[in-house]
Amino acid sequence: MTGYMGNKDDLLKRLRRAEGQVRGIARMVEDDQYCIDVLTQVSAATKALETVALSLLSDHLNHCVAEASAEGGPVAEEKLREANDAIARLVRS
Amino acid sequence: MTGYMGNKDDLLKRLRRAEGQVRGIARMVEDDQYCIDVLTQVSAATKALETVALSLLSDHLNHCVAEASAEGGPVAEEKLREANDAIARLVRS
Amino acid sequence: MTGYMGNKDDLLKRLRRAEGQVRGIARMVEDDQYCIDVLTQVSAATKALETVALSLLSDHLNHCVAEASAEGGPVAEEKLREANDAIARLVRS
Amino acid sequence: MTGYMGNKDDLLKRLRRAEGQVRGIARMVEDDQYCIDVLTQVSAATKALETVALSLLSDHLNHCVAEASAEGGPVAEEKLREANDAIARLVRS
Repeated sequence: MTGYMGNKDDLLKRLRRAEGQVRGIARMVEDDQYCIDVLTQVSAATKALETVALSLLSDHLNHCVAEASAEGGPVAEEKLREANDAIARLVRS
Repeated sequence: MTGYMGNKDDLLKRLRRAEGQVRGIARMVEDDQYCIDVLTQVSAATKALETVALSLLSDHLNHCVAEASAEGGPVAEEKLREANDAIARLVRS
Repeated sequence: MTGYMGNKDDLLKRLRRAEGQVRGIARMVEDDQYCIDVLTQVSAATKALETVALSLLSDHLNHCVAEASAEGGPVAEEKLREANDAIARLVRS
Repeated sequence: MTGYMGNKDDLLKRLRRAEGQVRGIARMVEDDQYCIDVLTQVSAATKALETVALSLLSDHLNHCVAEASAEGGPVAEEKLREANDAIARLVRS
Protein backbone atom coordinates (compact mmCIF):
# COMPACT_ATOMS: atom_id res chain seq x y z
CA MET A 1 0.00 0.00 0.00
CA THR A 2 1.30 3.45 -0.90
CA GLY A 3 0.17 6.76 0.54
CA TYR A 4 -0.46 8.12 -2.97
CA MET A 5 -2.77 5.26 -4.03
CA GLY A 6 -5.86 7.50 -4.27
CA ASN A 7 -3.86 10.07 -6.22
CA LYS A 8 -1.96 7.92 -8.68
CA ASP A 9 -3.60 9.08 -11.90
CA ASP A 10 -3.08 12.73 -11.05
CA LEU A 11 0.57 12.07 -10.11
CA LEU A 12 1.23 10.18 -13.34
CA LYS A 13 -0.37 12.94 -15.39
CA ARG A 14 1.83 15.55 -13.67
CA LEU A 15 4.95 13.43 -14.12
CA ARG A 16 4.27 12.91 -17.83
CA ARG A 17 3.74 16.61 -18.26
CA ALA A 18 7.04 17.31 -16.41
CA GLU A 19 8.83 14.74 -18.61
CA GLY A 20 7.45 16.53 -21.68
CA GLN A 21 8.64 19.86 -20.29
CA VAL A 22 12.19 18.54 -19.84
CA ARG A 23 12.15 17.05 -23.36
CA GLY A 24 10.93 20.41 -24.65
CA ILE A 25 13.85 22.15 -22.93
CA ALA A 26 16.32 19.81 -24.64
CA ARG A 27 14.68 20.68 -27.98
CA MET A 28 15.03 24.40 -27.20
CA VAL A 29 18.75 23.89 -26.53
CA GLU A 30 19.16 21.88 -29.76
CA ASP A 31 17.47 24.75 -31.63
CA ASP A 32 19.78 27.33 -30.00
CA GLN A 33 16.92 29.20 -28.42
CA TYR A 34 17.60 32.23 -26.26
CA CYS A 35 19.17 31.43 -22.85
CA ILE A 36 16.56 33.35 -20.86
CA ASP A 37 13.68 31.54 -22.61
CA VAL A 38 15.32 28.19 -21.86
CA LEU A 39 15.81 29.24 -18.21
CA THR A 40 12.15 30.20 -17.89
CA GLN A 41 11.18 26.68 -18.94
CA VAL A 42 13.69 25.12 -16.53
CA SER A 43 12.12 27.13 -13.67
CA ALA A 44 8.65 25.94 -14.75
CA ALA A 45 9.75 22.28 -14.84
CA THR A 46 11.40 22.64 -11.42
CA LYS A 47 8.19 24.09 -9.99
CA ALA A 48 6.19 21.22 -11.54
CA LEU A 49 8.45 18.66 -9.82
CA GLU A 50 8.16 20.59 -6.56
CA THR A 51 4.38 20.30 -6.78
CA VAL A 52 4.71 16.54 -7.36
CA ALA A 53 6.97 16.30 -4.30
CA LEU A 54 4.58 18.24 -2.06
CA SER A 55 1.69 16.08 -3.21
CA LEU A 56 3.62 12.83 -2.53
CA LEU A 57 4.70 14.10 0.86
CA SER A 58 1.22 15.18 1.85
CA ASP A 59 -0.22 11.76 0.88
CA HIS A 60 2.59 10.07 2.78
CA LEU A 61 1.94 12.07 5.97
CA ASN A 62 -1.84 11.71 5.71
CA HIS A 63 -1.71 7.93 5.22
CA CYS A 64 1.56 6.12 6.01
CA VAL A 65 2.75 8.40 8.85
CA ALA A 66 -0.72 8.94 10.37
CA GLU A 67 -1.43 5.19 10.40
CA ALA A 68 1.97 4.32 11.84
CA SER A 69 1.50 7.01 14.52
CA ALA A 70 -1.86 5.53 15.42
CA GLU A 71 -0.11 2.18 15.98
CA GLY A 72 2.87 3.77 17.76
CA GLY A 73 6.11 1.96 18.59
CA PRO A 74 9.37 1.77 16.64
CA VAL A 75 7.65 1.65 13.21
CA ALA A 76 6.02 5.03 13.94
CA GLU A 77 9.37 6.47 15.00
CA GLU A 78 11.05 5.16 11.86
CA LYS A 79 8.32 6.61 9.61
CA LEU A 80 8.63 10.02 11.30
CA ARG A 81 12.42 10.00 10.96
CA GLU A 82 12.15 9.10 7.27
CA ALA A 83 9.55 11.79 6.64
CA ASN A 84 11.67 14.44 8.37
CA ASP A 85 14.69 13.44 6.29
CA ALA A 86 12.63 13.66 3.08
CA ILE A 87 11.35 17.13 4.08
CA ALA A 88 14.91 18.33 4.77
CA ARG A 89 16.06 17.06 1.34
CA LEU A 90 13.16 18.89 -0.31
CA VAL A 91 13.70 22.16 1.55
CA ARG A 92 17.40 22.09 0.73
CA SER A 93 16.97 21.12 -2.94
CA MET B 1 24.28 33.20 -30.85
CA THR B 2 23.51 31.70 -27.48
CA GLY B 3 25.54 32.00 -24.29
CA TYR B 4 25.56 28.21 -23.89
CA MET B 5 26.96 27.50 -27.35
CA GLY B 6 30.27 26.13 -26.04
CA ASN B 7 28.40 24.00 -23.53
CA LYS B 8 25.59 22.57 -25.62
CA ASP B 9 26.62 18.90 -25.57
CA ASP B 10 26.99 18.88 -21.82
CA LEU B 11 23.62 20.63 -21.37
CA LEU B 12 21.87 18.17 -23.69
CA LYS B 13 23.43 15.23 -21.87
CA ARG B 14 22.22 16.59 -18.52
CA LEU B 15 18.74 17.30 -19.86
CA ARG B 16 18.41 13.79 -21.31
CA ARG B 17 19.50 12.33 -18.01
CA ALA B 18 16.93 14.52 -16.18
CA GLU B 19 14.22 13.42 -18.64
CA GLY B 20 15.14 9.80 -17.92
CA GLN B 21 14.97 10.50 -14.18
CA VAL B 22 11.44 11.93 -14.50
CA ARG B 23 10.36 8.95 -16.66
CA GLY B 24 11.85 6.64 -14.02
CA ILE B 25 9.80 8.38 -11.32
CA ALA B 26 6.59 7.81 -13.30
CA ARG B 27 7.52 4.13 -13.56
CA MET B 28 8.07 3.98 -9.79
CA VAL B 29 4.58 5.44 -9.24
CA GLU B 30 3.06 2.95 -11.73
CA ASP B 31 4.76 0.13 -9.79
CA ASP B 32 3.43 1.47 -6.44
CA GLN B 33 6.88 1.94 -5.02
CA TYR B 34 7.31 3.35 -1.55
CA CYS B 35 6.48 7.10 -1.21
CA ILE B 36 9.81 8.01 0.38
CA ASP B 37 11.79 6.26 -2.37
CA VAL B 38 9.78 8.13 -5.01
CA LEU B 39 10.37 11.41 -3.14
CA THR B 40 14.12 10.79 -3.04
CA GLN B 41 14.13 10.51 -6.82
CA VAL B 42 12.03 13.66 -7.21
CA SER B 43 14.58 15.57 -5.08
CA ALA B 44 17.40 14.19 -7.26
CA ALA B 45 15.65 15.26 -10.49
CA THR B 46 14.97 18.72 -9.04
CA LYS B 47 18.63 19.10 -8.13
CA ALA B 48 19.63 18.00 -11.66
CA LEU B 49 17.40 20.70 -13.19
CA GLU B 50 18.82 23.25 -10.75
CA THR B 51 22.33 22.41 -11.97
CA VAL B 52 21.17 22.88 -15.58
CA ALA B 53 19.69 26.26 -14.64
CA LEU B 54 22.88 27.45 -12.90
CA SER B 55 24.94 26.37 -15.88
CA LEU B 56 22.67 28.20 -18.35
CA LEU B 57 22.67 31.31 -16.19
CA SER B 58 26.43 31.32 -15.80
CA ASP B 59 26.93 30.99 -19.58
CA HIS B 60 24.39 33.75 -20.13
CA LEU B 61 26.13 36.16 -17.73
CA ASN B 62 29.62 35.30 -19.03
CA HIS B 63 28.66 35.80 -22.67
CA CYS B 64 25.40 37.63 -23.44
CA VAL B 65 25.36 39.96 -20.43
CA ALA B 66 29.12 40.61 -20.41
CA GLU B 67 29.10 41.47 -24.14
CA ALA B 68 26.05 43.69 -23.85
CA SER B 69 27.64 45.46 -20.86
CA ALA B 70 30.79 46.06 -22.89
CA GLU B 71 28.62 47.79 -25.53
CA GLY B 72 26.51 49.62 -22.93
CA GLY B 73 23.28 51.49 -23.69
CA PRO B 74 19.69 50.27 -23.52
CA VAL B 75 20.48 46.75 -24.76
CA ALA B 76 22.83 46.26 -21.79
CA GLU B 77 20.16 47.52 -19.38
CA GLU B 78 17.57 45.20 -20.89
CA LYS B 79 19.92 42.18 -20.62
CA LEU B 80 20.65 42.98 -16.97
CA ARG B 81 16.97 43.38 -16.16
CA GLU B 82 16.16 40.06 -17.84
CA ALA B 83 19.00 38.28 -16.02
CA ASN B 84 17.88 39.64 -12.66
CA ASP B 85 14.32 38.49 -13.30
CA ALA B 86 15.55 35.00 -14.24
CA ILE B 87 17.68 34.83 -11.07
CA ALA B 88 14.67 35.85 -8.93
CA ARG B 89 12.53 33.13 -10.57
CA LEU B 90 15.24 30.56 -9.86
CA VAL B 91 15.79 31.59 -6.24
CA ARG B 92 12.05 31.53 -5.60
CA SER B 93 11.41 28.21 -7.38
CA MET C 1 2.29 22.12 25.21
CA THR C 2 4.50 22.79 22.23
CA GLY C 3 6.26 20.20 20.09
CA TYR C 4 9.59 21.99 20.62
CA MET C 5 9.41 21.96 24.44
CA GLY C 6 12.37 19.59 24.82
CA ASN C 7 14.36 21.64 22.33
CA LYS C 8 13.66 25.17 23.48
CA ASP C 9 17.15 26.13 24.67
CA ASP C 10 18.76 24.96 21.46
CA LEU C 11 16.14 26.81 19.36
CA LEU C 12 16.63 30.03 21.33
CA LYS C 13 20.40 29.77 20.97
CA ARG C 14 20.07 29.33 17.20
CA LEU C 15 17.59 32.21 16.92
CA ARG C 16 19.85 34.56 18.89
CA ARG C 17 22.76 33.61 16.68
CA ALA C 18 20.62 34.25 13.56
CA GLU C 19 19.54 37.63 14.99
CA GLY C 20 23.22 38.50 15.51
CA GLN C 21 23.98 37.45 11.94
CA VAL C 22 21.29 39.75 10.55
CA ARG C 23 22.52 42.63 12.74
CA GLY C 24 26.05 41.94 11.48
CA ILE C 25 24.82 42.15 7.88
CA ALA C 26 23.28 45.59 8.57
CA ARG C 27 26.64 46.70 10.00
CA MET C 28 28.42 45.44 6.86
CA VAL C 29 26.03 47.51 4.71
CA GLU C 30 26.56 50.59 6.91
CA ASP C 31 30.33 50.13 6.49
CA ASP C 32 29.96 49.81 2.67
CA GLN C 33 31.46 46.34 2.60
CA TYR C 34 31.78 44.48 -0.67
CA CYS C 35 28.45 43.25 -2.15
CA ILE C 36 29.61 39.64 -2.51
CA ASP C 37 30.79 39.48 1.11
CA VAL C 38 27.43 40.84 2.28
CA LEU C 39 25.63 38.28 0.08
CA THR C 40 27.66 35.43 1.56
CA GLN C 41 26.45 36.43 5.02
CA VAL C 42 22.84 36.71 3.84
CA SER C 43 23.06 33.14 2.46
CA ALA C 44 24.48 31.97 5.81
CA ALA C 45 21.67 33.65 7.80
CA THR C 46 19.06 32.16 5.44
CA LYS C 47 20.53 28.70 5.94
CA ALA C 48 20.50 29.22 9.73
CA LEU C 49 16.78 30.09 9.64
CA GLU C 50 16.13 27.06 7.41
CA THR C 51 17.75 24.84 10.03
CA VAL C 52 15.52 26.40 12.72
CA ALA C 53 12.47 25.73 10.53
CA LEU C 54 13.40 22.09 9.91
CA SER C 55 13.97 21.57 13.63
CA LEU C 56 10.59 23.13 14.55
CA LEU C 57 8.84 21.09 11.89
CA SER C 58 10.45 17.85 12.98
CA ASP C 59 9.47 18.45 16.63
CA HIS C 60 5.95 19.34 15.51
CA LEU C 61 5.54 16.13 13.48
CA ASN C 62 7.13 13.96 16.17
CA HIS C 63 4.93 15.32 18.95
CA CYS C 64 1.83 17.32 17.97
CA VAL C 65 1.03 15.50 14.71
CA ALA C 66 1.96 12.02 16.00
CA GLU C 67 -0.19 12.47 19.13
CA ALA C 68 -3.15 13.86 17.20
CA SER C 69 -2.85 10.95 14.72
CA ALA C 70 -2.88 8.49 17.59
CA GLU C 71 -6.19 10.05 18.73
CA GLY C 72 -7.55 10.33 15.16
CA GLY C 73 -10.67 12.28 14.21
CA PRO C 74 -11.02 15.84 12.94
CA VAL C 75 -8.21 17.22 15.16
CA ALA C 76 -5.76 14.81 13.51
CA GLU C 77 -6.95 15.86 10.06
CA GLU C 78 -6.60 19.53 10.94
CA LYS C 79 -3.05 19.01 12.30
CA LEU C 80 -2.03 17.15 9.13
CA ARG C 81 -3.50 19.85 6.89
CA GLU C 82 -1.66 22.57 8.86
CA ALA C 83 1.62 20.65 8.74
CA ASN C 84 1.33 20.14 4.98
CA ASP C 85 0.66 23.84 4.46
CA ALA C 86 3.69 24.75 6.58
CA ILE C 87 5.88 22.34 4.58
CA ALA C 88 4.66 23.86 1.30
CA ARG C 89 5.47 27.38 2.57
CA LEU C 90 8.96 26.23 3.57
CA VAL C 91 9.70 24.43 0.30
CA ARG C 92 8.53 27.46 -1.69
CA SER C 93 10.39 30.04 0.42
CA MET D 1 32.32 51.89 -4.10
CA THR D 2 29.60 49.33 -3.58
CA GLY D 3 26.92 48.28 -6.05
CA TYR D 4 24.20 48.94 -3.47
CA MET D 5 25.28 52.54 -2.74
CA GLY D 6 22.11 54.08 -4.21
CA ASN D 7 20.00 51.58 -2.29
CA LYS D 8 21.61 51.62 1.13
CA ASP D 9 18.76 53.16 3.12
CA ASP D 10 16.23 50.72 1.73
CA LEU D 11 18.57 47.77 2.42
CA LEU D 12 19.18 48.90 6.00
CA LYS D 13 15.47 49.34 6.60
CA ARG D 14 14.79 45.82 5.31
CA LEU D 15 17.62 44.34 7.39
CA ARG D 16 16.40 46.03 10.56
CA ARG D 17 12.91 44.72 9.91
CA ALA D 18 14.32 41.20 9.36
CA GLU D 19 16.33 41.48 12.60
CA GLY D 20 13.11 42.46 14.42
CA GLN D 21 11.33 39.48 12.85
CA VAL D 22 14.00 37.07 14.11
CA ARG D 23 13.89 38.64 17.59
CA GLY D 24 10.09 38.29 17.51
CA ILE D 25 10.46 34.58 16.66
CA ALA D 26 12.71 34.08 19.69
CA ARG D 27 10.07 35.77 21.84
CA MET D 28 7.39 33.46 20.43
CA VAL D 29 9.54 30.43 21.37
CA GLU D 30 10.13 31.84 24.88
CA ASP D 31 6.35 32.25 25.24
CA ASP D 32 5.73 28.66 24.06
CA GLN D 33 3.64 29.76 21.13
CA TYR D 34 2.20 27.19 18.75
CA CYS D 35 4.79 25.48 16.48
CA ILE D 36 2.93 26.27 13.26
CA ASP D 37 2.63 29.98 14.15
CA VAL D 38 6.38 30.10 14.88
CA LEU D 39 7.09 28.33 11.57
CA THR D 40 4.98 30.84 9.65
CA GLN D 41 7.13 33.65 11.03
CA VAL D 42 10.34 31.77 10.20
CA SER D 43 9.14 31.43 6.57
CA ALA D 44 8.36 35.17 6.50
CA ALA D 45 11.83 36.09 7.83
CA THR D 46 13.47 33.75 5.32
CA LYS D 47 11.54 35.39 2.47
CA ALA D 48 12.57 38.84 3.76
CA LEU D 49 16.26 37.82 3.66
CA GLU D 50 15.77 36.36 0.18
CA THR D 51 14.44 39.73 -1.00
CA VAL D 52 17.50 41.45 0.52
CA ALA D 53 19.75 38.98 -1.30
CA LEU D 54 18.05 39.50 -4.68
CA SER D 55 18.29 43.25 -4.25
CA LEU D 56 22.02 43.09 -3.38
CA LEU D 57 22.68 40.76 -6.30
CA SER D 58 20.80 42.93 -8.77
CA ASP D 59 22.72 46.04 -7.66
CA HIS D 60 25.96 44.10 -7.90
CA LEU D 61 25.26 42.91 -11.46
CA ASN D 62 23.98 46.32 -12.60
CA HIS D 63 26.99 48.19 -11.24
CA CYS D 64 30.08 46.16 -10.28
CA VAL D 65 29.74 43.39 -12.89
CA ALA D 66 28.50 45.67 -15.69
CA GLU D 67 31.38 48.12 -15.14
CA ALA D 68 33.99 45.39 -14.92
CA SER D 69 32.59 43.81 -18.11
CA ALA D 70 32.85 47.16 -19.87
CA GLU D 71 36.56 47.21 -18.95
CA GLY D 72 37.07 43.52 -19.75
CA GLY D 73 40.19 41.54 -18.84
CA PRO D 74 40.86 39.36 -15.80
CA VAL D 75 38.98 41.66 -13.37
CA ALA D 76 35.80 41.15 -15.40
CA GLU D 77 36.31 37.39 -15.40
CA GLU D 78 36.87 37.37 -11.66
CA LYS D 79 33.71 39.45 -11.03
CA LEU D 80 31.65 37.10 -13.20
CA ARG D 81 33.01 34.03 -11.45
CA GLU D 82 32.25 35.54 -8.03
CA ALA D 83 28.72 36.53 -9.09
CA ASN D 84 28.01 33.04 -10.42
CA ASP D 85 29.23 31.49 -7.18
CA ALA D 86 27.00 33.83 -5.14
CA ILE D 87 23.98 32.96 -7.33
CA ALA D 88 24.64 29.22 -6.86
CA ARG D 89 24.83 29.70 -3.06
CA LEU D 90 21.53 31.58 -3.12
CA VAL D 91 19.71 29.08 -5.33
CA ARG D 92 20.93 26.21 -3.16
CA SER D 93 20.14 27.91 0.19
